[in-house]
Amino acid sequence: MKRVGIVGGGQLARMLALAGRPLGLDFTALDPGSEACAAAVARLVVAPYDDAAALAHLASLSDVVTYEFENLPAGALEGLAAAVPVRPPTRSLLTSQDRLVEKTLFGSLGMATAAHRAVNTLEDLNGALAALGCPAILKTRRLGYDGKGQALIRQASDASMAWNAVTGGANRAELILEGFVRFRAEVSQVSCRGADGVMVHYPLTENVHSGGILRRSIPLTEKQAAPFTSLARAAMERLMQELGHVGVLCLEFFVTDAGLVANEMAPRVHNSGHWSIDGGGVSQFENHVRAVAGLPLGDPNPCRPVAMVNLIGEMPDPVSILSLPFVRLHDYAKDVRPGRKVGHLNLVPAQGRGMRACLEAVAPLVGEETRAAMLIPSLSEG
Amino acid sequence: MKRVGIVGGGQLARMLALAGRPLGLDFTALDPGSEACAAAVARLVVAPYDDAAALAHLASLSDVVTYEFENLPAGALEGLAAAVPVRPPTRSLLTSQDRLVEKTLFGSLGMATAAHRAVNTLEDLNGALAALGCPAILKTRRLGYDGKGQALIRQASDASMAWNAVTGGANRAELILEGFVRFRAEVSQVSCRGADGVMVHYPLTENVHSGGILRRSIPLTEKQAAPFTSLARAAMERLMQELGHVGVLCLEFFVTDAGLVANEMAPRVHNSGHWSIDGGGVSQFENHVRAVAGLPLGDPNPCRPVAMVNLIGEMPDPVSILSLPFVRLHDYAKDVRPGRKVGHLNLVPAQGRGMRACLEAVAPLVGEETRAAMLIPSLSEG
Repeated sequence: MKRVGIVGGGQLARMLALAGRPLGLDFTALDPGSEACAAAVARLVVAPYDDAAALAHLASLSDVVTYEFENLPAGALEGLAAAVPVRPPTRSLLTSQDRLVEKTLFGSLGMATAAHRAVNTLEDLNGALAALGCPAILKTRRLGYDGKGQALIRQASDASMAWNAVTGGANRAELILEGFVRFRAEVSQVSCRGADGVMVHYPLTENVHSGGILRRSIPLTEKQAAPFTSLARAAMERLMQELGHVGVLCLEFFVTDAGLVANEMAPRVHNSGHWSIDGGGVSQFENHVRAVAGLPLGDPNPCRPVAMVNLIGEMPDPVSILSLPFVRLHDYAKDVRPGRKVGHLNLVPAQGRGMRACLEAVAPLVGEETRAAMLIPSLSEG
Repeated sequence: MKRVGIVGGGQLARMLALAGRPLGLDFTALDPGSEACAAAVARLVVAPYDDAAALAHLASLSDVVTYEFENLPAGALEGLAAAVPVRPPTRSLLTSQDRLVEKTLFGSLGMATAAHRAVNTLEDLNGALAALGCPAILKTRRLGYDGKGQALIRQASDASMAWNAVTGGANRAELILEGFVRFRAEVSQVSCRGADGVMVHYPLTENVHSGGILRRSIPLTEKQAAPFTSLARAAMERLMQELGHVGVLCLEFFVTDAGLVANEMAPRVHNSGHWSIDGGGVSQFENHVRAVAGLPLGDPNPCRPVAMVNLIGEMPDPVSILSLPFVRLHDYAKDVRPGRKVGHLNLVPAQGRGMRACLEAVAPLVGEETRAAMLIPSLSEG
């Protein structure tokens, strides 16, 4: 399987192709935008995601197709899957598209989740609030992304305001109410399952969000992650086996006083695994393309400390940023727009230099909101 | 300088673009072959290297132009240089194109070289042999590559046979006779000079050739290289400053009982620096594009042991090779032909695993001549 198709031509597709070209693999990306940044390193088919002819064209250029995001029209995927193997499988995608289906699956596999109720009407919402208490978060079941389509409800009397905010005033909508989880930290488990069923796990990674957008990720050391690692890996293995997953899967958890609480999954390479490009192990991008192409997986373990800082809405001056010897720049070559992920930095301190000093040296060069978030003390300093 | 042109579209151009895309740089390669393997990651202009219109087109798409090999027609480079900055500079290229000019420069900068004489006729050759003694090597001054255009002369009576072998029986030719250097090892110094004059040095690397083709390269540890490092770096710094070089320069040395003897230079990224992609430092490819694009250079030092083995004339089964956890595959996606470099492997042993064991595990998977050469004991084991 030398020819890999990717639905989506953004930075994840770009980094998949950058990682897969050295394996001798060929890449074609389908994207509605002719400026899609993956086009620098992959053949580009420009068409909407539900364009049947374009999907057939993508399939004809590919031995296997993968995707870089989970909000794909299900119909598009079904059409593709009839023509060519699609990895990860449809069930992984469909599960991740619906917060209720996702949490139900997590629960059935024995994972702790936030308390939750399906909500289809304002009446349902009032009932769910009575059951779960406040604060609680009302979310659309589908198409949530980077904190959009959500409303925090602090008191029961805010129910109808939240309903209107999320639904735009509809009578019925497919929503979910989730009990508020008091967490000490957010972590993610990025793992990969090969076509042969072999699974590899990246270290548990601590994530800091702000404004609903990931700002910083730092993989924990073996010792730091020790209280959580076996639970996270066992949950991931049950989940990947249940789904028949092939490729990278990311599972996000809250760290609470009562242990890990599963939040959501992404059936693809994930922003919280971007540090893996520069850790010295085989990156999440290379392992994902190895998996979808039917190749053996590589060693996911970093051989040195590393941290990732997102570049959001602005690109730092490259001369200033590259003057820092511990910085590795990943510029997605996208037009800069407010709130848009346009690149990331991986920090690889030389021996004897602490990560905190590196973060502080980078801080003046990134946007204000990221700066504040990236300097938050980390579990990894505990 | 965001748009980088590359004359040549082979694996070096491909790896330059793979390294430079994450910096947000854009690449266009000029190559006579429409199948040029850099086309996977760079815009491709298909034309002969001396096609003035194509060179003008390349210049129009580029803020700066570099090249991936040194046997460029000088006229092509002059035309380009009139339109756009060319880095490394013309003098670096012209010097490397002529063994006599190169050795003369080395000598003028105080470097030891093989004893040598210019040879333009058979009579010159006989005189040079009388002066230098046998064995000696007769070489064309220009267009030598991977051991072609050379003849070893074991005794003075072989002179006319060697003359005919190298010149095809011409009356006059521009040749050089070099005294034979008895060496214990071959090493190379890969360094990079930025547009601002800052220089960085990769560790001295030990190379093993066979059949005139590089088979294996292993960077020496600081301790192993200690007897040679200051001389190699000082020579390199004098050379780069003298040339006004910008970009990577490779200087090959023989290790003799009397110390380092300079052999030849290449004004570009070099096969003996390919290990740098997976050593954990900034690779020779990234530093070259940083230099030509006017960006600050990155830390060249590897953070772990690494070795490079060339894949020549055949590509191993990817499943077998990727099953070895210490292997990083670099497949150039070129058609396989005897003697052709089609990829390389970088070996990154996990802590506690020796490089020798890794080389032995890889040996059964590569071609016979490489296998024999790659297992030769190394200075790095001393």
